[in-house]
Amino acid sequence: MSQSTYEKLRTELREIGTLGTVSALVGWDEQVMLKPGGTEFRSQQGALLARMIHERFTSKQLGDWIGELEGSTPENEDARVILRELRHDYDRATKLPSSLVEELARTTTLSQAAWVEARSKKDFATFSPWLTKMLDLKRKEAACLGSASGHPYDALLEGYEPGETCESLTKLFDAMKPRLVALIERTADSGKVAPLEILERRYPAAAQEKLAREAAAAIGFDVNAGRLDISVHPFCSGIAPGDTRITTRYDEQFFGDAFFGTLHETGHAMYEQGLPKSTHFGTALADATSLGIHESQSRLWENLVGRSRPFWSLFFGKAREAFAPTLDDVSMDDWMFAVNDIRPSFIRTEADEATYNLHILLRFEIEQKMLKGDLNVADIPKVWDETFKRYFGIDVPDISKGCLQDVHWSCGLIGYFPTYSLGNMYAAQFYRAATRAIPDLESLIAKGEFSPLLSWLRANIHMHGRRYRGRELAQRVTGEDVSPNALLDHLEARGREYYGV
Amino acid sequence: MSQSTYEKLRTELREIGTLGTVSALVGWDEQVMLKPGGTEFRSQQGALLARMIHERFTSKQLGDWIGELEGSTPENEDARVILRELRHDYDRATKLPSSLVEELARTTTLSQAAWVEARSKKDFATFSPWLTKMLDLKRKEAACLGSASGHPYDALLEGYEPGETCESLTKLFDAMKPRLVALIERTADSGKVAPLEILERRYPAAAQEKLAREAAAAIGFDVNAGRLDISVHPFCSGIAPGDTRITTRYDEQFFGDAFFGTLHETGHAMYEQGLPKSTHFGTALADATSLGIHESQSRLWENLVGRSRPFWSLFFGKAREAFAPTLDDVSMDDWMFAVNDIRPSFIRTEADEATYNLHILLRFEIEQKMLKGDLNVADIPKVWDETFKRYFGIDVPDISKGCLQDVHWSCGLIGYFPTYSLGNMYAAQFYRAATRAIPDLESLIAKGEFSPLLSWLRANIHMHGRRYRGRELAQRVTGEDVSPNALLDHLEARGREYYGV
Repeated sequence: MSQSTYEKLRTELREIGTLGTVSALVGWDEQVMLKPGGTEFRSQQGALLARMIHERFTSKQLGDWIGELEGSTPENEDARVILRELRHDYDRATKLPSSLVEELARTTTLSQAAWVEARSKKDFATFSPWLTKMLDLKRKEAACLGSASGHPYDALLEGYEPGETCESLTKLFDAMKPRLVALIERTADSGKVAPLEILERRYPAAAQEKLAREAAAAIGFDVNAGRLDISVHPFCSGIAPGDTRITTRYDEQFFGDAFFGTLHETGHAMYEQGLPKSTHFGTALADATSLGIHESQSRLWENLVGRSRPFWSLFFGKAREAFAPTLDDVSMDDWMFAVNDIRPSFIRTEADEATYNLHILLRFEIEQKMLKGDLNVADIPKVWDETFKRYFGIDVPDISKGCLQDVHWSCGLIGYFPTYSLGNMYAAQFYRAATRAIPDLESLIAKGEFSPLLSWLRANIHMHGRRYRGRELAQRVTGEDVSPNALLDHLEARGREYYGV
Repeated sequence: MSQSTYEKLRTELREIGTLGTVSALVGWDEQVMLKPGGTEFRSQQGALLARMIHERFTSKQLGDWIGELEGSTPENEDARVILRELRHDYDRATKLPSSLVEELARTTTLSQAAWVEARSKKDFATFSPWLTKMLDLKRKEAACLGSASGHPYDALLEGYEPGETCESLTKLFDAMKPRLVALIERTADSGKVAPLEILERRYPAAAQEKLAREAAAAIGFDVNAGRLDISVHPFCSGIAPGDTRITTRYDEQFFGDAFFGTLHETGHAMYEQGLPKSTHFGTALADATSLGIHESQSRLWENLVGRSRPFWSLFFGKAREAFAPTLDDVSMDDWMFAVNDIRPSFIRTEADEATYNLHILLRFEIEQKMLKGDLNVADIPKVWDETFKRYFGIDVPDISKGCLQDVHWSCGLIGYFPTYSLGNMYAAQFYRAATRAIPDLESLIAKGEFSPLLSWLRANIHMHGRRYRGRELAQRVTGEDVSPNALLDHLEARGREYYGV
């Protein structure tokens, strides 16, 4: 392998990556800092950066370097991985004609605006022409990208969860569904109802923020290399080496949103902070494995740790103090039940950790048909509501709580949803492996010692970047192929504990 | 003129300008938001953007377009101005070899770090080799740029205050000096001392912030098109169309810093918000005339308006309420005297509006000699202290309060200081013209009606961008050439009012 070509390639990747960090910062600022007067121009800043990055990443020169380096196998394992993943990304990026990329970008902006309007008016007709157009463009995109199966959904999925297909995910979801549905039915029939009122008392935003910051720092968020701010839609952005930022929002009438949301985003953030960016910035080795693996890190901290008894044996006292006297009459048992509630609900983002997966199954089923053309856009609301009734046993009250609730389709993010449930599976599987590797894990957590768990995640998951596909990583870390078993075992244990079922 | 070439030029300028806005945002974020862990990488983001902007702005293609368009006079006055200023900037940018630009950038970073250390250790020797190197580089820069007079200082000054020279500024400063020195002597001899203790009481940061925000919004800062945040060194950045941001800092033991600092930065910000960016973005017509004109806008609001009796007849009640009961025993007259104090002091940035100009005269005198080579670097502290004694009549206690107080020389900002006093002159001259044009101006201000003044500034100054040189603009707006007379009349009136001299 030519060292000088490799060095030129690395320099180019570093510069493209640096432009990417600038673009990420501009995006963060837009969500968190920008006032309305700056919005219009901001879209020009974002578009220019996106175009420059795309042009450099799809350049013939870059392709020539990759081709030249592929001619001789690099001795270095890291370089092999970097080249392999670069080929993967370069081919995908260059397969799309600029005209399609631009039309997708333009349509996304308009389609998203139409979706916002449609949701607020509860009027599907306002959005349906845009969804039709978006599906058409996504089919074209899938046709350009191609897939081994020939299924367009697989071509899109590859962009979010490399290596997974409809077939592989369907197997996992089919294995999950019966036990999950049975658990949810048992909890509903148990006659027990979680004391949710506890979480709906008055929680001043300042006290919430203080507790959320304390929790984020306690579990391991490096506050010297990142920020916690407020935005309408909470997110995490691993902007640049040494600069990872998360956001949340405070609802003074509900405890759960900000606190668990912060744990969730902190999980994402600690993954970003754990990626080997100082050595491998600009290459796939400094990137997250996949969306599913990213989500596994957020879910692990939010749910496996953050809703556990050891965690709250440490934090319940702090919460009582932070919101005194609001929680003075609440027992630890009632609190634990409230934060481990399982019950059907309409909005995915507000769902508990068990029923959440049903929301994903529903979307995975519908969007495959949508993309294939087996489901007409006009029929989506009806099919959504019927499928929802079948899964959840309740009637969707209106379309804003039905098929118009998520932003994803309006942005063309088709194939994204299944990675959320895959993340839940990975999370439970990784956590189980961690409890094996760190025998006294739960008593350490109860003492506030989170670093053994974080170090284990760093060493086993974070440090690898995109060295392995998600499934291969899980196999290496846990000794088992990915499966819903750990997740189901975990959820069933919570069912037994709180619902006695 | 070829319309299609002109359109291509405008598109290129818009893109370079857009990269400039991104660079400005990255810079703002660094000062206001970035945590320490992100600092190292941030310098790479900044350097990449700076290099890309420089490469595109100095490209042969851009030069060819300018040359082609200069071949035929544009019918359009705006296009004529845009081309004239572009030629000015293009020639200056292309005269500097990249190696010099890079060495200046590298030296600035290191030299600034050395200055920080030297100031904190009060040790000139830590900084002097860097100042020697910086002066050498700035002489090279001046030699590349050239000037009509052949004086290197003029070549640098042209970058901050186009059209001004040592000679033209010396005339102004010589005209200012006798009356200014006499005024300061009279106030010192008056036996009267401003009740500064009033401003040094406890002022909680939250209350200061509330009052500062109210004042900024009241005088006309568009809060929907900008932000007010906190940073160590207060500044204003006109980041992009619709996005102008200012910062301040709160000292709980001193009222003046944040409040007058905010008025100052708001003055800068309203100029940025008033530039015709929506039409002319990317061209000189959307840029500030010069540093002096920019400073005139900040000084006008900070001093001419913000320290006036009409202003405080409106705001003193608000201040009393905001800090109650801290100011209950303070009369309006005492307050007015405190905020209009005139007395020699060591630190330029903390100086009152009269003695401030002496600080500039001192620096202007010394840095001309420094650059010419008539003053050895090793002799600067001695000459500074002697000159300071001559101007102010007091002894500099240590070098951190002497020639090491300002960051400017360490950054290579030689020729920048005089624009501050020029700004003071312009401010007073513009304000006098405004009081003529708006006869009841002061009673409007007392009623909180600031918009007639702002509209007048918008129409007479802001909307012109770089259409005229500073001096020409002043002539058009005030009917007189620039002179220190309006400033001196204003300062002498304050001397009479508060010191009875």
